[in-house]
Amino acid sequence: MGASLGVVELTIALHYVFNTPKDQLIWDVGHQAYVHKILTGRQDNFHTNRQLGGISGFPKRDESNYDAFGVGHASTSISAALGMAIASQLKGEDKHHIAVIGDASIAGGMAFEGLNHAGVTNANLLVILNDNAIGIDPSVGALKMYLTNVKKGTQKQDNIFEALNFDYSGPIDGHDIDTIISELNRLKTVKGPKFLHIITKKGKGLKQAEVDQVKYHAPGKFDAKTGDLAAKSTEVQPPKYQDVFGYTIVELAKQNKNIVGITPAMPTGSSLKYMMEEIPERAFDVGIAEQHAVTLAAGMATQGLIPFCNIYSTFLQRAYDQIIHDVALQKLPVIFCLDRAGLVGEDGATHHGVYDLSYLRCIPNLIIFAPRNEVELRNIMYTAQFGLAFPIAIRYPRGRGVTIDWKQPFSKIEIAKGVQLKKGKNLAVLSIGSMALNVTEAIKYLNVSHYDMRFIKPLDENLLHTIFKIYDIIVTVEDHAIKGGFGSAILEFASENGYKNNIKTLGIPDAFIEHGSVDELQELVGLDVGNLNTIFTDFL
Amino acid sequence: MGASLGVVELTIALHYVFNTPKDQLIWDVGHQAYVHKILTGRQDNFHTNRQLGGISGFPKRDESNYDAFGVGHASTSISAALGMAIASQLKGEDKHHIAVIGDASIAGGMAFEGLNHAGVTNANLLVILNDNAIGIDPSVGALKMYLTNVKKGTQKQDNIFEALNFDYSGPIDGHDIDTIISELNRLKTVKGPKFLHIITKKGKGLKQAEVDQVKYHAPGKFDAKTGDLAAKSTEVQPPKYQDVFGYTIVELAKQNKNIVGITPAMPTGSSLKYMMEEIPERAFDVGIAEQHAVTLAAGMATQGLIPFCNIYSTFLQRAYDQIIHDVALQKLPVIFCLDRAGLVGEDGATHHGVYDLSYLRCIPNLIIFAPRNEVELRNIMYTAQFGLAFPIAIRYPRGRGVTIDWKQPFSKIEIAKGVQLKKGKNLAVLSIGSMALNVTEAIKYLNVSHYDMRFIKPLDENLLHTIFKIYDIIVTVEDHAIKGGFGSAILEFASENGYKNNIKTLGIPDAFIEHGSVDELQELVGLDVGNLNTIFTDFL
Repeated sequence: MGASLGVVELTIALHYVFNTPKDQLIWDVGHQAYVHKILTGRQDNFHTNRQLGGISGFPKRDESNYDAFGVGHASTSISAALGMAIASQLKGEDKHHIAVIGDASIAGGMAFEGLNHAGVTNANLLVILNDNAIGIDPSVGALKMYLTNVKKGTQKQDNIFEALNFDYSGPIDGHDIDTIISELNRLKTVKGPKFLHIITKKGKGLKQAEVDQVKYHAPGKFDAKTGDLAAKSTEVQPPKYQDVFGYTIVELAKQNKNIVGITPAMPTGSSLKYMMEEIPERAFDVGIAEQHAVTLAAGMATQGLIPFCNIYSTFLQRAYDQIIHDVALQKLPVIFCLDRAGLVGEDGATHHGVYDLSYLRCIPNLIIFAPRNEVELRNIMYTAQFGLAFPIAIRYPRGRGVTIDWKQPFSKIEIAKGVQLKKGKNLAVLSIGSMALNVTEAIKYLNVSHYDMRFIKPLDENLLHTIFKIYDIIVTVEDHAIKGGFGSAILEFASENGYKNNIKTLGIPDAFIEHGSVDELQELVGLDVGNLNTIFTDFL
Repeated sequence: MGASLGVVELTIALHYVFNTPKDQLIWDVGHQAYVHKILTGRQDNFHTNRQLGGISGFPKRDESNYDAFGVGHASTSISAALGMAIASQLKGEDKHHIAVIGDASIAGGMAFEGLNHAGVTNANLLVILNDNAIGIDPSVGALKMYLTNVKKGTQKQDNIFEALNFDYSGPIDGHDIDTIISELNRLKTVKGPKFLHIITKKGKGLKQAEVDQVKYHAPGKFDAKTGDLAAKSTEVQPPKYQDVFGYTIVELAKQNKNIVGITPAMPTGSSLKYMMEEIPERAFDVGIAEQHAVTLAAGMATQGLIPFCNIYSTFLQRAYDQIIHDVALQKLPVIFCLDRAGLVGEDGATHHGVYDLSYLRCIPNLIIFAPRNEVELRNIMYTAQFGLAFPIAIRYPRGRGVTIDWKQPFSKIEIAKGVQLKKGKNLAVLSIGSMALNVTEAIKYLNVSHYDMRFIKPLDENLLHTIFKIYDIIVTVEDHAIKGGFGSAILEFASENGYKNNIKTLGIPDAFIEHGSVDELQELVGLDVGNLNTIFTDFL
């Protein structure tokens, strides 16, 4: 919300000056595109924003002709707009192509790649830097410092972007609509790659949002008149997995001087902020730079540090090559905390963490673990910090767990060891991570066995041999794509060992899943308690 | 070879001034580290370079204490060195950390991420830019233009890197060893992040290598005295897959004005150079920028262009997130040509293209195809350029195919359609891509059936139902990791459909495979003709 409030004037000016949708407007990430959506025909159903079947929180090509490119992750807008601009050139069309990108997103390496290419073309591309010194959390890095100095007038303005061959103008006040309109009109007549630097305030117009920009990035429900947030429940609730991570790394790092924490621009979301407050010299927010975050961690690990590299499952897709080469190939014991694994809810298709098992399972030397609850998350963090022989990826979901009394004394988890949660006959259910909870509910009154395999890699082969010898029917359950995930690992095990048991794999079907609440989406893909119960019952 | 000749003086100076291996020296990519290897104890076995069991063509931590970080892909050195430098700070150690990076590699987005972070630390990091205006092919992009202007004196020198808060010095002559030594000695005393810009000539000292820098990047065998390359065989040979791609895209693009070609810095390696020569306005070398390359292609596809985005399988790991969101989620019909899929030989562990099926198979909407020979590659390119409903990834191996008479009239390939190559009894072998050739040889005298499935996704389910109903034993063969690959897709099919056939999956075991010739490596992993024959025979 805060991001969109900051660009009200800019959005109006862009639609006023340019002939959208013929001229193509691409919003980087898309957090800031609410005003754009309201102005382009989605006012009446804006109340369905981020709800199942409603409009998406991000621009989406399916949703409107005005959404020139679907977004969600940072730093893609320049490349996409350049592709369109080059296409227009080739086709002899006279169009404008505008990428609007924040100062946090432009620090992502991919944005630099786009600028570097655009600067040697004569494509009709306008890059607008929406500089508010904040992403979801405050921006970091040398580029941010440079931009701050430009704003203060202590740095020459024509520096980096002119060096990359852009026609630079600015900085101008992004809340002065007349100035913006006049500058956009001027830039319309300038050929080739152009760069406009505007200064905005995130949350502009809503006092609380201007003051507490992090909280009001996505504040949830609030009073439209006063801006006050809806009161939080005072009921004692189980903690968020994020907070369990955040408090536990502080607890461990106080004992173990070698522990460092790394986040690419998600200190609040991941709760690494607790460590950044308490042990700032060993907690690093590197900005939107997942590739760098992973290889930085690898470099640190070569020196005997124990890096906890916390990256959302969906964002780790940005650093895939680095995990393979810089970490796994070199057997460096980096501890990846894959936050927001599984279905994440309202952020939708671009944010679900449902591919990590497929893309990680093929990497040699990598351990993959999924805690079924908060205590298991704490204990695997405790276990890993002693230094494993290999890197480990720990995947856990967004939001609250189930354990009020989560802060138990630490105990070590044996690598590649699963556990039986319920004894029964007829069939065995094998689950990973927090899917154990759905399964537990679903089999409450059924006479079936339930195993939490915990480790997706290496599998607990001893336990599997026992299971395969006892049960004819084996059902796997995972909050992950069915292609290549945990279920496939079990199929591979069965094939290697010549087992002919009936194996049914349950997970997310081979389709992109849109936004909605996690409960709604679980029902949609059949991983809710009711549907699981029906499936298990059918086997009996 | 050319890259290493260019840094002889620099390498000597670095080892002279710094106290390696205590001080840590990281070579970006590592092409240029031959002199370093010779100077650090590997002179006597340097003749084993890139051979099976011999030393690696890249720095490797296992190989020597002087190899501070394993490399292979571009742009990682700054992040790794920064990680080490921060570790030294935390541990109170007094060490130097030096990243040597070329002007092609520093244009990769990840390098920018590293610079952006380093600039706000006071880590003891020295980044040396080895500026020779060429990677494997000549460098491109706005940054390269900027650096050229710095060299010519037409650009202020204190620009981009000072803006990022580095203590910048240079440019200096990288072949003047006294100047380098004196400057390195001075920089040793400067605290915080430092940047030294040196100008070198790739291939320095070997005339032919200075003149033809692209050919002498990795020239193969040549006369050590004269520098003349070994004469090439005049025998008519089957073409390289790369040339089939290169000639075919030109052929198609002449007919179809919407076709564009994109390569991230591999115009020679991929043979896109033919299109760059003949149709330069529609063929793009975007530099070492895989992320940008993919999203640029997506942007172009939104405008009705037909982008052939040629990226080595191993390098596509750098653009994984972009394939998912920018291409597949939006159903944009980008045509990915995944060159060098499978085992690539002498480049070794960092370059084998053996994970693509696992990381691509879980992506909804994506078609995956592997041609078994040159004609199939041509025909799938022909088929795809009419515009499919979905993106497609075409994976093919490095090097020569088998078909002298490859330039056949085009014919369309039906999507999701496999073919039977040999009729037999007893068992069915299902292969993908050029593995068909090994299988064909291996079963020459065996009474078994052989199918080329062609499409890894979507599978030819009709054909599979037929196969599963006829044969009890089914063996899959792929030049890809066994975890999550083609064989797993077949296991998933069998599980979904309740088949209980005996399925054996052959592929690359769950371990990193080192360097050697492709033949040697195939033997190592058991995918050679002899071993396949033994396995098939054992089943009979």
